[in-house]
Amino acid sequence: MRPQWQTIFVSGGAGYIGSHCILELLHQDYEVIAVDNFVNSVDENGEAISLKKVRQITGREVTFYQCDLLDKAKLDHIFSQHSIDCVIHFAAMKAVGESMKNPLLYYQNNLISAMNLLNVMKKYGCQQLIFSSSCTVYGNPKFLPITEEHPVGDVTNVYGKTKYFVEEILKDISTAEEGWNIISLRYFNPVGAHPSGLIGEDPTKPFTNLMPYMAQVALRKKNVLTIFGGDYDTVDGTDLNKNVRTSTVILGIRDYIHIMDLASGHIAALKKLQDEHLTLKVYNLGTGRGTSVLELIHTFEEVSGKSIPYKIEGRREGDIVSMYANTDLARKELNWKTKYTLKQMCEDFWKWQCMNPNGYKSFSSESCTVPPISQNHNIKTLNGHS
Amino acid sequence: MRPQWQTIFVSGGAGYIGSHCILELLHQDYEVIAVDNFVNSVDENGEAISLKKVRQITGREVTFYQCDLLDKAKLDHIFSQHSIDCVIHFAAMKAVGESMKNPLLYYQNNLISAMNLLNVMKKYGCQQLIFSSSCTVYGNPKFLPITEEHPVGDVTNVYGKTKYFVEEILKDISTAEEGWNIISLRYFNPVGAHPSGLIGEDPTKPFTNLMPYMAQVALRKKNVLTIFGGDYDTVDGTDLNKNVRTSTVILGIRDYIHIMDLASGHIAALKKLQDEHLTLKVYNLGTGRGTSVLELIHTFEEVSGKSIPYKIEGRREGDIVSMYANTDLARKELNWKTKYTLKQMCEDFWKWQCMNPNGYKSFSSESCTVPPISQNHNIKTLNGHS
Repeated sequence: MRPQWQTIFVSGGAGYIGSHCILELLHQDYEVIAVDNFVNSVDENGEAISLKKVRQITGREVTFYQCDLLDKAKLDHIFSQHSIDCVIHFAAMKAVGESMKNPLLYYQNNLISAMNLLNVMKKYGCQQLIFSSSCTVYGNPKFLPITEEHPVGDVTNVYGKTKYFVEEILKDISTAEEGWNIISLRYFNPVGAHPSGLIGEDPTKPFTNLMPYMAQVALRKKNVLTIFGGDYDTVDGTDLNKNVRTSTVILGIRDYIHIMDLASGHIAALKKLQDEHLTLKVYNLGTGRGTSVLELIHTFEEVSGKSIPYKIEGRREGDIVSMYANTDLARKELNWKTKYTLKQMCEDFWKWQCMNPNGYKSFSSESCTVPPISQNHNIKTLNGHS
Repeated sequence: MRPQWQTIFVSGGAGYIGSHCILELLHQDYEVIAVDNFVNSVDENGEAISLKKVRQITGREVTFYQCDLLDKAKLDHIFSQHSIDCVIHFAAMKAVGESMKNPLLYYQNNLISAMNLLNVMKKYGCQQLIFSSSCTVYGNPKFLPITEEHPVGDVTNVYGKTKYFVEEILKDISTAEEGWNIISLRYFNPVGAHPSGLIGEDPTKPFTNLMPYMAQVALRKKNVLTIFGGDYDTVDGTDLNKNVRTSTVILGIRDYIHIMDLASGHIAALKKLQDEHLTLKVYNLGTGRGTSVLELIHTFEEVSGKSIPYKIEGRREGDIVSMYANTDLARKELNWKTKYTLKQMCEDFWKWQCMNPNGYKSFSSESCTVPPISQNHNIKTLNGHS
């Protein structure tokens, strides 16, 4: 057996998924070189707060650079300083609604950053890569559960198209050039937080995901959750969607996966890449179980003891009704399976939210109690922001 | 009626298609600002030889900058110096075979250059664009002749994928942002040259197209044309393909269009954009007629009085058998139709080749006679190149 890889380069390492994966990498004794530009994460004088907490949880060090992948010179310098065995590329802009409003920004950021990274990897002879892809590449599902063979490319939003385009680039370079060894992981819907409550998805960044929004409603920092599509033919007849334009979070039947299960999927992919030469392989990371929005709301209400006010509005064209993974391939080939239940996803996210009601900026100064509605509203009125 | 647009910015202006379109733009009294990086064109001390000849033919001036679209600062400077009414974006790497060998180079050049151009256009308030697309975006045809409604995206090569990706970016930005007015022209197979014989497709650049290769065989600068796929179900049972790896040019039944017809298609598109706000429209530019390789070879032999030795090899997976355009939409909406016959395409190309057997580098020093085989071969042996 080959010696275990030592050093993993993680782009977008300070973000929600990046920080949880780094925690898992450190537990597995990898050395981590992380970079982030803090567009989707929070810093304190150039230091990633999430990674400070990862150090606190693990007692291990992470080498961190504030670096935008569009800065080729800085990226090159970092690669010149370390001997990197494998890259995990999380860094991307990820707000679906924003991507529809400003497509050029998304195409530029997500495509150029990936191409810059591939170039520097080639230059320094590192051809092992795990890419953060997304189930959005499947577009509107033609069958369920979705296998990795499901057609891709008929994508309904710009964010998803950037993921699809990068997958195509990876396919073409790994076909054309010797030596590439790549896994593209198509995430379903990552939620939850590390059970410590110390790291999680920062709710102060623009809301694009359901759970941070739901938690903010539970905390009375947002008023109500709007559910689109009460006439859907689903278990409870509801659907939400993912659109920042309406200031609501909107999703139908989705495959929610605990962030720590997602992290362990990356460790499994890493070991697979180390053991076998794959050229390029794609795996779904999900639980294989579809959950409706009302089921999620009710579970969240039960766990938090808070009511989540919601209203149902009309179904909108283009909203995907139902999407969940067939996870056979990852189970079989990566020897990986999920462990966490929906309830644990809600519990861990709620713990993170209570401990950090304003996200990373407040972690050291605020208590775990939920502020009463009136007080919170006053703060909002006085300061113009919560 | 609005006043006619004055100033057209042309990227890739020194190339084969760019130079012929500029000639037509000058005939129509437009002012032209052209840029080129000379990757696919020839310069003499930073001056585009093709555009020098365009000036000679038209008696009109072209403002030219040597500029790579990846150089954002220089591009910005050029836009700051001129009031540009519309952009025609030709610049791209275009060798199909090379694109399969070096995908990252093609993705970077063709995507980043397009995105840089779109950004500078936004900055300077110019939202009128004609984009050079290609029939390769249709992939393997599902029906013939191909209309603009034919599915796109299942593209068989990286070059074509870059065209498809840029079309998608154009679709998304023109949907998201007010004011864009874009025509994407999907070229079929441009061949021929300006009837003066002074400008044409430079044969000294790597061969990726059939006609320059065929002319070089006629001139005995290349030995033989290899035809792939003698068992195709076409009129004469032959197929060629487009692949530089084998140093041959390979195409099946294709829709060859004279370069001057293609140029007039751009003028028609320009007038359309000026008269109507389209957001984004796509038009095929072809003749609507499919021509087999043997038909082309025989027409070329007839016109040139030279034999074109060819050999037929086995059909290869992925080669597209037949592809030709339905041109109804461009005829109806652009009020445009082709004028030149296949024979004229061959005649004009042959004239260009005889007058410039070694392309632009030789235009002032060589005569129009075809060098005998032995002499040419000697030169090749002595100098290591022809």
